[in-house]
Amino acid sequence: MTAWYVEHGPEGDVVVSSRIRLARNVKETPFPVHMSREQGEQIIEKAKQVLLGSGNGAAHVFDYFSMNELNAVDKQVLVEKHLISPEMLQDVHSRGVLLSKDECVSVMLNEEDHLRIQCIFSGMKLDEAWDLANKIDNLIEQEVEYAYSENYGYLTCCPTNAGTGLRASVMIHLPALTITRYINSLLNAVGKLGIAVRGLYGEGTEARGHFFQISNQVTMGMSEEDTLENLKGIVRQIIEQERLARRKLFHENRERLEDRLYRSYGIFSNARIMSSQEFMKLLSDVRLGINLEIIKGISLKKMNELMIATQPANIIKRFDGNLSAEQRDMKRAEMIRNTMDH
Amino acid sequence: MTAWYVEHGPEGDVVVSSRIRLARNVKETPFPVHMSREQGEQIIEKAKQVLLGSGNGAAHVFDYFSMNELNAVDKQVLVEKHLISPEMLQDVHSRGVLLSKDECVSVMLNEEDHLRIQCIFSGMKLDEAWDLANKIDNLIEQEVEYAYSENYGYLTCCPTNAGTGLRASVMIHLPALTITRYINSLLNAVGKLGIAVRGLYGEGTEARGHFFQISNQVTMGMSEEDTLENLKGIVRQIIEQERLARRKLFHENRERLEDRLYRSYGIFSNARIMSSQEFMKLLSDVRLGINLEIIKGISLKKMNELMIATQPANIIKRFDGNLSAEQRDMKRAEMIRNTMDH
Repeated sequence: MTAWYVEHGPEGDVVVSSRIRLARNVKETPFPVHMSREQGEQIIEKAKQVLLGSGNGAAHVFDYFSMNELNAVDKQVLVEKHLISPEMLQDVHSRGVLLSKDECVSVMLNEEDHLRIQCIFSGMKLDEAWDLANKIDNLIEQEVEYAYSENYGYLTCCPTNAGTGLRASVMIHLPALTITRYINSLLNAVGKLGIAVRGLYGEGTEARGHFFQISNQVTMGMSEEDTLENLKGIVRQIIEQERLARRKLFHENRERLEDRLYRSYGIFSNARIMSSQEFMKLLSDVRLGINLEIIKGISLKKMNELMIATQPANIIKRFDGNLSAEQRDMKRAEMIRNTMDH
Repeated sequence: MTAWYVEHGPEGDVVVSSRIRLARNVKETPFPVHMSREQGEQIIEKAKQVLLGSGNGAAHVFDYFSMNELNAVDKQVLVEKHLISPEMLQDVHSRGVLLSKDECVSVMLNEEDHLRIQCIFSGMKLDEAWDLANKIDNLIEQEVEYAYSENYGYLTCCPTNAGTGLRASVMIHLPALTITRYINSLLNAVGKLGIAVRGLYGEGTEARGHFFQISNQVTMGMSEEDTLENLKGIVRQIIEQERLARRKLFHENRERLEDRLYRSYGIFSNARIMSSQEFMKLLSDVRLGINLEIIKGISLKKMNELMIATQPANIIKRFDGNLSAEQRDMKRAEMIRNTMDH
């Protein structure tokens, strides 16, 4: 298995990644917001015991990182890779993450809930992510008694997660629906079906570069399987709508579309200084150009890699220095050129 | 000799072309604005007699074009090549042009004056253009008695041309002085020295793409030689100022300059639709990039060619069709890409 951002998975022309997150809490221990440092450490010890053991059954080899011990750049790198949530950056005691070496699984400890099991894959792989998350959940459940109610299901700190504790989401690229302005009515319709649409880094973040996170809102009164089927059905429809809009753009307005995409490509592969915001805007056009076979000789896989590698902390980590914002913008432009040249 | 726009002459990094224009009128014939059709035709016949003869001594082979017989596109092509003035497009009787086959000499007949002898060369070649214009002037003077006054010199329709009747001008590219904002104070200073600064197509036109026309304003009380020496001295100073500003930009702000020039280059060589206005803006950056050896593998000569070949009427003429503005913008982008690819 490889990290989601160095791959190009199924339906990768529209779906960048699929993610499953299970919220779990340990019975008779206060939620993280109320627990003592000692209780927090007990949660961490228990989780490490289960997942760091060699025979953990999940066939994924984990490392443990304490949030207090990671430096700011390393933490931000994990956020940029979607392996921990931005909330994990807050300076709160007893927080850590168990991270599989292939970066497909991360178990956040003492974020909003005691355990947040997350599996993330490239492309449309909700079922695979669910299978793996389920396995890890079962593994932990053999050793830990979860807070669970016959009436409500899994109990969580925030009631919006209680029940299945399941948040299934896909990161989806919708440039054609955005350009043709169908996006708003589509997102409105989707909202009425119990589906949330968010920006790239979850709640409250912007949908930069026409990338959206689409996830289930309902966690109670619906089985995990039905939740997944419902989301998958809606995502399938969005994929078809986006593909239709792309074909329509291509056939009805080819010259203007090509002009737009080639201009973005020209700037993308020639600029010497580029902000991450502009990067996302241009990446969106370049991705669309690759999908429509207008822009050739570059793979979507490379674009996925670049999307993460050019994030600010990833750049600082890679070049191992105290780069100013402008120096980062120059490194970003250099990385893009190197990718586009090959 | 070859046309100015398919060459790259001396000081071609700054000076695109040099032009000499002599205004002459025939003695005892009313100025064109007041003359009869018959008088106009006599002027034309006389000029044709002198210059269409095989032994015309100027060693330039001329063709005659009557303005009434040229179609609108052909006339506009000549304007775009700076071979006739935009004023020649007005629907006035008895107008024509004697044009040398190499497009270095054009003699406009019955524009504002009876004769306007023009020589245009690539790069800084005012002396050469003056020599040639002078020869042609002498040739005509052997056959025609000019309107001339001992007090005022050559008489012209507009008193601002009387005296020498000489307008010497250079088309000059000043991107660095414009970017660094020294241009306005420089142009102000130049204005005080009896020098006019105008846009690309003369009086009242805009200085698109950081191209300027610099010419003498004074035609009375100063010999032709002094007029040329004065203009050449000032142009030499402007050339040095521009080169200094380029080096300064390059050394003090290299990253931002490279970013700007490469972005323009990226759009220039990738766009599918391009207006002539945007073309000039980007051309300016690409030229500067070539001059600073930031952009490699493309010659300034090619850029000069492109500047004329992508003008609207030149495109229509070349593709021999009824192209809409958008179709022209697409052809223009295609011509640019073809040039940049080679």
